[in-house]
Amino acid sequence: MPSTPHIESHFTASASVRDVVIGMADGLTVPFALAAGITGAVLTSTQATALVVTAGLAEIAAGSIAMGLGGYLAAKTDAEHYSSERQREIRETLELPAVEAEEVAKVFREYGLTEAQMTPVVNAICSDPQRWVDFMMRFELGLEPPDPRRASRSAVTIAAAYVVGGLIPLAPYMILPSVIVALRYSAVITAVALAIFGYVKGRFTGISPWKGALQTVFTGGLAASAAFALVKLIE
Amino acid sequence: MPSTPHIESHFTASASVRDVVIGMADGLTVPFALAAGITGAVLTSTQATALVVTAGLAEIAAGSIAMGLGGYLAAKTDAEHYSSERQREIRETLELPAVEAEEVAKVFREYGLTEAQMTPVVNAICSDPQRWVDFMMRFELGLEPPDPRRASRSAVTIAAAYVVGGLIPLAPYMILPSVIVALRYSAVITAVALAIFGYVKGRFTGISPWKGALQTVFTGGLAASAAFALVKLIE
Repeated sequence: MPSTPHIESHFTASASVRDVVIGMADGLTVPFALAAGITGAVLTSTQATALVVTAGLAEIAAGSIAMGLGGYLAAKTDAEHYSSERQREIRETLELPAVEAEEVAKVFREYGLTEAQMTPVVNAICSDPQRWVDFMMRFELGLEPPDPRRASRSAVTIAAAYVVGGLIPLAPYMILPSVIVALRYSAVITAVALAIFGYVKGRFTGISPWKGALQTVFTGGLAASAAFALVKLIE
Repeated sequence: MPSTPHIESHFTASASVRDVVIGMADGLTVPFALAAGITGAVLTSTQATALVVTAGLAEIAAGSIAMGLGGYLAAKTDAEHYSSERQREIRETLELPAVEAEEVAKVFREYGLTEAQMTPVVNAICSDPQRWVDFMMRFELGLEPPDPRRASRSAVTIAAAYVVGGLIPLAPYMILPSVIVALRYSAVITAVALAIFGYVKGRFTGISPWKGALQTVFTGGLAASAAFALVKLIE
């Protein structure tokens, strides 16, 4: 596989950035929307602030663990999927070598090579079983060998991003005595945090930063509005 | 790209299965854990059931929209990333053709081809600019052209899976008058649902179904315990 530093750094960064994005996008949005949603329902309660903060913290705990473990299991599943597909390719090169050699040839045929140009290439690849299987994994199935440390790193990154993101909209409810005042502060600081997050995310993922900012503020706003509207409907 | 029916169906299934897994894993876990967590806090309230159901529904609304839009934006970002990398490769083949031709050669060198075997292959690939860029995208960067309908389909699948998953743990609170009794029923049906979900997920993703079942029950249990413990700590 290609191993220029430029590509390696590109892929590593994008995996971690993706994890932060997964965790923080939800962390900023769901606890904010939940707190906003139940603020309307508990307004008359004597312990309104305590209820919102409790629900918000319970959501952050549950959400960060569920998403972190989800990321862990997804990475583990990818690794197991890679290894089971690899076993299958090894078996196929042993049992059906002609079919597999033809699949190597097919990859090159798509790039306009003649049979004469192709033959030495296909022979060279198929002469080494290890190399043959590597080629099939990468070019037939499009699977890259997974990083073994990825699963646990992914879990921690996602969970931490969720907690950090989730505490931002919840902070005003923890500080201010009135839930309705806290809701206003929460909306403002969450919108600002979503915009900054979307801007930075846009820079990392190569889309326009301002477009990224707009997207995340819109997502958060829509989720919160839906939660709020639903609660008003129930009442 | 390879276009045998076997591979196509493999990839399509895995993208949708992944979306259902993303949505349902969180949908089953977070609303359950949240409802369990706040049940302890609102026990003494006269409207305990209403509060848990309201918070749960608000969470499902917020979570499904946040995750659905998150999936939409992730797919859009992948598509934009592909297109911006493609533009860069087009530019590089025009501005630095020797460097890019050498990168094509490097791919083949890794598979043990001699320079003599490689030369006609590299020349054939680089003779057509379209083909050359296609080759770089796939073999140097490992990027597959994204499916244009993927983003919206992904959003709907994730959001729907989240709603379906989230309503399962919440149903007992909607039906039963006592939150503490509802919590027990919710724990049992959610554990059963997580086990079935994990089993089916295991079958689709190629890992052992029983291992899948164990993983999801464990994830859900851990998230709920953490939410519950946190609420007890606050009190």
